[in-house]
Amino acid sequence: MLRSHTCGELRISDVGKTVKLAGWVQRSRDKGSVLWIDLRDRYGLTQLIFEEGKTEASLFEQARATGREFVIQIEGVVAERLSKNDKIPTGEIEIKATKLTVLNTAKLPPFTIEDETDGGDDLRMKYRYLDLRRNPVREKLQLRHKMAQQTRAYLDAQQFIEVETPVLIKSTPEGARDFVVPSRMHNGEFYALPQSPQTFKQLLMVSGFDRYYQIVKCFRDEDLRADRQPEFTQIDCEMAFIEQEDILNTFEGLIRHLFKSVKGIDLPTVQRMQYADAMKFYGNDKPDTRFDMRFVELKGEGIDLTSGKNFVVFDNAELVVGVNASGCSDFTRKQLDELTEFVKRPQIGARGLVYVQCKTDGTFKSSADKFFSSDDLKKWAETFNAKPGDLLLILAGESNATRKQLSELRLHVGEQLGLRDKSKFSALWVLDFPLLEWDEENKRYHAMHHPFTSPKTEDIHLLESDPGKVRANAYDMVLNGTEIGGGSIRIHDKPTQQMMFTHLGFSEAEAKKQFGFLMEAFEFGAPPHGGIAFGFDRLCSLFGGSDSIRDFIAFPKNNAGRDVMIDTPSTISEEQLKELGIKI
Amino acid sequence: MLRSHTCGELRISDVGKTVKLAGWVQRSRDKGSVLWIDLRDRYGLTQLIFEEGKTEASLFEQARATGREFVIQIEGVVAERLSKNDKIPTGEIEIKATKLTVLNTAKLPPFTIEDETDGGDDLRMKYRYLDLRRNPVREKLQLRHKMAQQTRAYLDAQQFIEVETPVLIKSTPEGARDFVVPSRMHNGEFYALPQSPQTFKQLLMVSGFDRYYQIVKCFRDEDLRADRQPEFTQIDCEMAFIEQEDILNTFEGLIRHLFKSVKGIDLPTVQRMQYADAMKFYGNDKPDTRFDMRFVELKGEGIDLTSGKNFVVFDNAELVVGVNASGCSDFTRKQLDELTEFVKRPQIGARGLVYVQCKTDGTFKSSADKFFSSDDLKKWAETFNAKPGDLLLILAGESNATRKQLSELRLHVGEQLGLRDKSKFSALWVLDFPLLEWDEENKRYHAMHHPFTSPKTEDIHLLESDPGKVRANAYDMVLNGTEIGGGSIRIHDKPTQQMMFTHLGFSEAEAKKQFGFLMEAFEFGAPPHGGIAFGFDRLCSLFGGSDSIRDFIAFPKNNAGRDVMIDTPSTISEEQLKELGIKI
Repeated sequence: MLRSHTCGELRISDVGKTVKLAGWVQRSRDKGSVLWIDLRDRYGLTQLIFEEGKTEASLFEQARATGREFVIQIEGVVAERLSKNDKIPTGEIEIKATKLTVLNTAKLPPFTIEDETDGGDDLRMKYRYLDLRRNPVREKLQLRHKMAQQTRAYLDAQQFIEVETPVLIKSTPEGARDFVVPSRMHNGEFYALPQSPQTFKQLLMVSGFDRYYQIVKCFRDEDLRADRQPEFTQIDCEMAFIEQEDILNTFEGLIRHLFKSVKGIDLPTVQRMQYADAMKFYGNDKPDTRFDMRFVELKGEGIDLTSGKNFVVFDNAELVVGVNASGCSDFTRKQLDELTEFVKRPQIGARGLVYVQCKTDGTFKSSADKFFSSDDLKKWAETFNAKPGDLLLILAGESNATRKQLSELRLHVGEQLGLRDKSKFSALWVLDFPLLEWDEENKRYHAMHHPFTSPKTEDIHLLESDPGKVRANAYDMVLNGTEIGGGSIRIHDKPTQQMMFTHLGFSEAEAKKQFGFLMEAFEFGAPPHGGIAFGFDRLCSLFGGSDSIRDFIAFPKNNAGRDVMIDTPSTISEEQLKELGIKI
Repeated sequence: MLRSHTCGELRISDVGKTVKLAGWVQRSRDKGSVLWIDLRDRYGLTQLIFEEGKTEASLFEQARATGREFVIQIEGVVAERLSKNDKIPTGEIEIKATKLTVLNTAKLPPFTIEDETDGGDDLRMKYRYLDLRRNPVREKLQLRHKMAQQTRAYLDAQQFIEVETPVLIKSTPEGARDFVVPSRMHNGEFYALPQSPQTFKQLLMVSGFDRYYQIVKCFRDEDLRADRQPEFTQIDCEMAFIEQEDILNTFEGLIRHLFKSVKGIDLPTVQRMQYADAMKFYGNDKPDTRFDMRFVELKGEGIDLTSGKNFVVFDNAELVVGVNASGCSDFTRKQLDELTEFVKRPQIGARGLVYVQCKTDGTFKSSADKFFSSDDLKKWAETFNAKPGDLLLILAGESNATRKQLSELRLHVGEQLGLRDKSKFSALWVLDFPLLEWDEENKRYHAMHHPFTSPKTEDIHLLESDPGKVRANAYDMVLNGTEIGGGSIRIHDKPTQQMMFTHLGFSEAEAKKQFGFLMEAFEFGAPPHGGIAFGFDRLCSLFGGSDSIRDFIAFPKNNAGRDVMIDTPSTISEEQLKELGIKI
């Protein structure tokens, strides 16, 4: 080894030892007669000292000549520091250097290798290997490693078997776009990269593997938005001979194990919510449950406290609904205007906002004072269960759109009030998703989860008459308002699967061509089974308290799907194209 | 859960318990008044019993109607068996069934789901999900899981960090052919799938990750031979601030840990051999060291015991070399003829074989008796260190070709003599590979390992004068005559890397285009580093005592690179082609 110790290892108890260290020059401080160098490696920082008179002159000069990010090897003796640094574990000692070897020089990096850097996004991506030297970035990837370790530890202990499924598979027209790989041996034919190992994990259940998992790369050729990567990683799981309750318990166990082992947090029992309730009370299928602020309806099913007062906006609305921003009655005019501006943004799309200030003196002040009496407002306040000091924020319009708008407002206000603290965690199961969703463009139903999801037995009779009402045995896990995983109990018999394909508008021939092998497999004794997949990149970013998944990927691609460091995608040779039998 | 216990769980101590099991009907035996069913799941087999008079008549009929591979759920009471089966852990008990639910029916499988099946290769691949139900196949994948677990356990304990590197990377003309992925967002441009994460793991060292690993899918678009898969899995590792000795120790540790933890075997210290010696004494860079049978030269460098006796074959030969098949002097004429036929096969290519039988009475008999006296043969025998009872097998011709032929003969005889026992293990480091190999077709040197491998310092001066003689800091690990891993100490500075590219015939522009980012990275403080990659599929197959890697892959492709189960590669739609901007 080129070192006897790492740069994070030496302590006061090591004083007097002769050691050999190697690492990068983080910085040096030259006080004329004394020179200090901070030597860095993955494990920490150690201070080196060179002193005029005590250090050999040539060594002193050599030390002075080492620049930032030089890779050096140092020999010396561990000594107690005069002025200690209690911020780092090695802060009580320094190395009196006796020999310095430059292992490699370094050009000046294009940005500073410090916790807070001066490098912009583009520059840091181009020199990602330098960005990865910075502690906060490296720590994010170390967190990811620990997450993977603990995921495996939990699932291994539960007798899950990790099985690798193929990457070169078959293109299917369902779902997102596939990346495809032209075959050289079979010109004109293509492999596809998997969007998920869905069919393979179901086949493993047919094979009797009973409990399968894999931490696996998946691929989607979609137009990229911020923080969506063409390749991403899933924790992919499937179980046989189980019911939905078993899946919920097993994977609630996983998430609680991760919180405990990685962050030392005892996550409370994961709450459960019907999809219908999530939409009704939070306007969102992934409510942020770090704070409550549930929707309260003033005009809706079975209630109308707003009509007949000549307030046209409410009179014309299908739904009048709001949230109680508790303790916010003293919001200034400016703050209230900002909220109105917020909901009127084109991406939110509300026409306006009605507020009611429940003053601490028991009176009410509202932007709709002209139309509603104090008594009216009092009734509203009672419906909201509001106390003096609260602030009601009310939207009106078409039900679905209004709920969506109010959901955005709720999150916005939650953010303003500091209720969305990244160091607080609240997990939630959203249950009983609809089986199908209407695709207006193609005038047909799509599987909301995927075509292998089973309908709830008690809803099957609605498949003909009211398909949109059929609920599925499908569930999502939501953490702090972000979907981190989703799954379902699968169909495991051929007749049901065929019925589903029919409802999804597949002809028998199409269904056979795309999923024939799976349907055939179901005829040879498929057990009841179900599973779930977690978005690993996102899960890591939430654990790391970050909004960006990119930070948790060693070599991410940019929004144009490009890796600017290695410069890909790029052109290939004519010879390659010819061998593949394709033309641009 | 649909079961209270698995089918491998119940013991005599559970007698009297009411239980619920679920699984597949392995077989049933109908003795008229008594019916037994063996119920199977991943964990084992449990016998169910139905008795006329004791079992309700309708249940009895129901049981009789369940066919092979039906999926059933059973409720019943654990009872002691009359005739016990000591071959299975549940062999002392059976379940007196009280309720049977058919969870799914099954068509008759196209082959029997037994340890020994009647299904041919093609049929088993088409119905791989049924093949995977068979115990020996499932056990191979369970072994693979355990190998992965233990690999991670060892490397995690050694502070390696698992980092995922990208799958959508850049095509490079070096090495094998890349699979490419056309970009939809950048028509005319392509990603490539990685043949290995080589450059990324080196960049991680530049980033200071210090110790990296990944169990990772890699891809090579090569013409397939038996047991070569277009996608395969590597244990990929890299370390910084190390020398070759550190790598050898660390990964010898890994392999010994795997033997101990997975197979309970204390593997002896891994032997070490120079590449030059491997070629000289075994004619092979991956000698099978489960048995010795080293090459002995009769005519070669510094020796000539064969010339001048009018035996033209030897007189014209550059090399006369043989092996001692110890204790085989009593080989029959038929056996000796078979060996001669063996070496004369076109794929071996020898002209003939000379043998010398060292008879137990001290005399010699040789196929070259006409040319060589008893004294000559005695001298040969002494050179071979042969004892009475031994058999010398001798080939002659051009040195390299003859060594290759003799290597094949050595392995063939070793096989015949039972010296290549699949349950015995011998591991070996082969060291100091040549840096370059001559590519006759393109009249240039190729990197033998890859272009990032460092030359031995003491050989650098030969790079100009005699490039073929330059040795590399490169090493392979060989297990039972199969290369299971290989790696090298890398070049970590730009001048050396540029020199290598020059010697490999890259123009500066080409080198910059292909590896510019790596060479640039070397300028910002790259530490000394090196690594290794193990072929995980092959390693598993050796641990499993099998010649076929395919058995250790859940869903392998056939020799034409085709997955016959899902039928891929396959055509894609015109719309997809149009979006990708390519034409067939």
